[in-house]
Amino acid sequence: MTINATYHIRQPESKIDAVAEKLAIGLTVGSWTDLTAEDRDHLERFKGQVIEKKVLEENLLEVVIGYPESNVTPDFSSIITTVFGKLSLDGEVKLIDLEFAADYYRHFKGPAFGIEGIRELLGVAGRPLVMSIFKGIIGRDKVFFEEQLRAQALGGVNLIKDDEILYDVPELPFEERIQIANRVLDEVEQETGRKVIYAVNLSGPVFDLPEKARRGVELGARAFLFNVHSYGLDVLKGLRALELGVPLMAHPAFSGAIAGSPDYGLSYPLILAKLTRLAGADLVLFPAPFGSVTLSEETAGAIVAECVKTLPISAAFPVPSAGIHPGLVNKLIDSYGVDQVINAGGGVHGHPEGAAAGGRAFTEAIDLYYGGTTGSAYEQAVTLWGS
Amino acid sequence: MTINATYHIRQPESKIDAVAEKLAIGLTVGSWTDLTAEDRDHLERFKGQVIEKKVLEENLLEVVIGYPESNVTPDFSSIITTVFGKLSLDGEVKLIDLEFAADYYRHFKGPAFGIEGIRELLGVAGRPLVMSIFKGIIGRDKVFFEEQLRAQALGGVNLIKDDEILYDVPELPFEERIQIANRVLDEVEQETGRKVIYAVNLSGPVFDLPEKARRGVELGARAFLFNVHSYGLDVLKGLRALELGVPLMAHPAFSGAIAGSPDYGLSYPLILAKLTRLAGADLVLFPAPFGSVTLSEETAGAIVAECVKTLPISAAFPVPSAGIHPGLVNKLIDSYGVDQVINAGGGVHGHPEGAAAGGRAFTEAIDLYYGGTTGSAYEQAVTLWGS
Repeated sequence: MTINATYHIRQPESKIDAVAEKLAIGLTVGSWTDLTAEDRDHLERFKGQVIEKKVLEENLLEVVIGYPESNVTPDFSSIITTVFGKLSLDGEVKLIDLEFAADYYRHFKGPAFGIEGIRELLGVAGRPLVMSIFKGIIGRDKVFFEEQLRAQALGGVNLIKDDEILYDVPELPFEERIQIANRVLDEVEQETGRKVIYAVNLSGPVFDLPEKARRGVELGARAFLFNVHSYGLDVLKGLRALELGVPLMAHPAFSGAIAGSPDYGLSYPLILAKLTRLAGADLVLFPAPFGSVTLSEETAGAIVAECVKTLPISAAFPVPSAGIHPGLVNKLIDSYGVDQVINAGGGVHGHPEGAAAGGRAFTEAIDLYYGGTTGSAYEQAVTLWGS
Repeated sequence: MTINATYHIRQPESKIDAVAEKLAIGLTVGSWTDLTAEDRDHLERFKGQVIEKKVLEENLLEVVIGYPESNVTPDFSSIITTVFGKLSLDGEVKLIDLEFAADYYRHFKGPAFGIEGIRELLGVAGRPLVMSIFKGIIGRDKVFFEEQLRAQALGGVNLIKDDEILYDVPELPFEERIQIANRVLDEVEQETGRKVIYAVNLSGPVFDLPEKARRGVELGARAFLFNVHSYGLDVLKGLRALELGVPLMAHPAFSGAIAGSPDYGLSYPLILAKLTRLAGADLVLFPAPFGSVTLSEETAGAIVAECVKTLPISAAFPVPSAGIHPGLVNKLIDSYGVDQVINAGGGVHGHPEGAAAGGRAFTEAIDLYYGGTTGSAYEQAVTLWGS
């Protein structure tokens, strides 16, 4: 079986055969014309295959190469180095997609919880979830953390995540954030009957992460936020293999360095969604095309599709993020459906009546979408940010 | 103290103040105008600073932001997520450089051997080293491996590296490659009096790498090749922290996905050289501008400069690679000086008289550069590939 890589290559049509052959041979057995008949027989099964080649537009070729699974080990580093190691240095070539045979998924656990598992943890079915993000947390202390956490939780959000740029700093150590959050969120649950999960940023020296994650779970951590793209996909895969028993949330930080260019790197749907889901992300954050950081609607749609499509691993929750406010809820549900986590920072904290009202505005917007009546927090948000 | 990040941003001159301020505030304390005087006093030391801003050309700005060291932990993930996490998703912005205060280098071991240490291991002073790469090794067996290793070693190269796309496969397991190489290279040393170091590709599940590297060293591994850009810089930093006692060689595979675009990602000198040296690479491979995969001469020169410039950590050996043949030796030494490892695959194996003659052609080329007489292997190579 092969791993099929789809590339977009800025080359003229006249080069298509040479380019395709160069990939299939050059990135596997190295040469073919120099080989003896005996060597060819033996090496046939290690040789890349040209699965497809076509001209997309002038000077833009699409080539699909099948790499024998047995050439690589089931590590992202191995797969990526084979299909896009040397090739990434070779001019305007973009890796658009990787396709694996159904049987190859046995090497990847994928999401431990996925959409269904997270819905069960939170006891919420049939509607999108809402997540909020700490704001202005850098340089702040435990009192600020606790107050902001409580305000967010009281508004009705389902999840709260650390700012991805908050690490394990002396003012707000990892362990204490977990413990404070458990106390606060247990109080909120007793008060309101609603479960809220806090995702603490798992950070630090890479080989300390397994022990640190286990210690976090022992202290009661209920989810981890993880900057997978600055650590590497194999690190997420390695954390997933630990069976920590809590959801893993993949942050898109740094992914733009790999996917931002139209002509280089990987596509956003591949790096942000397909590979992080495969590595074990239960929740996949991505910049929504309606907010402040903008991807195209087509790209965002493809990211969501990669999160939820039927595969031998569980579906991951797509989490549209960045510049989200309650007035965008309609558009988000129309675009991505019920299985998403709507994620907001400024759109929660910037509410005229504070973060709790900000959270309420989102839940009111969702109620309204599903036929409920409008609420005052939502109306205030829409007055401020539009809809 | 601050970590100073230099960005190139495709925006008009009219935006320069707003852009610079957005980075300094937005990527640190989040907001400033909303804060009370008391909060501002407290948060001043966590706030990013605009160190410099200038217009490079129409619609191209250069902005330097200083991020307080105390905002991050000394992990690449943390540093990169802060300076280029969210920002990487924000359009045409390229991270050109990171500058650290002298004192900040205490968090990074840098190369364990570096140029001086590797020269001592090999007993070669005052001239460039030569490295050769296995060719057509995918799908081959131990007999092929052993024969090709011996042929390369007999020619006079100083180092031999695995193909970066050869992993720990059943046909050629990691452990056996190490053991075969030790036997062969000890024999070559007895025959010729020359030491040759073989760098085995360290690959596999990321959290197994420390144990695997230690096992490799116990079996006699004398260097590791490492696909740092598909694993992550922190993984290399973590391996360096183990004090394995053997050199680490950083392969450039996948770096083009991060550095290839002129408008997105990181610069090649930063990702390929500065950060891998900081992480602990003793040898830094990069595509030479004279060979098959081409960077500009300016970029390649900047990569070499980052490998060798005076810092509180050792210098790393720059290793120009890709399409190198003996006729390029003059140009390489003229461009990069004596402290480099000239690295060739096809330029060794493609020699009319085989790999041993290919290695000899390189040593003859270096002899000739330093005033020796020409040799027959070199002459044959020049006849074939030019000079």
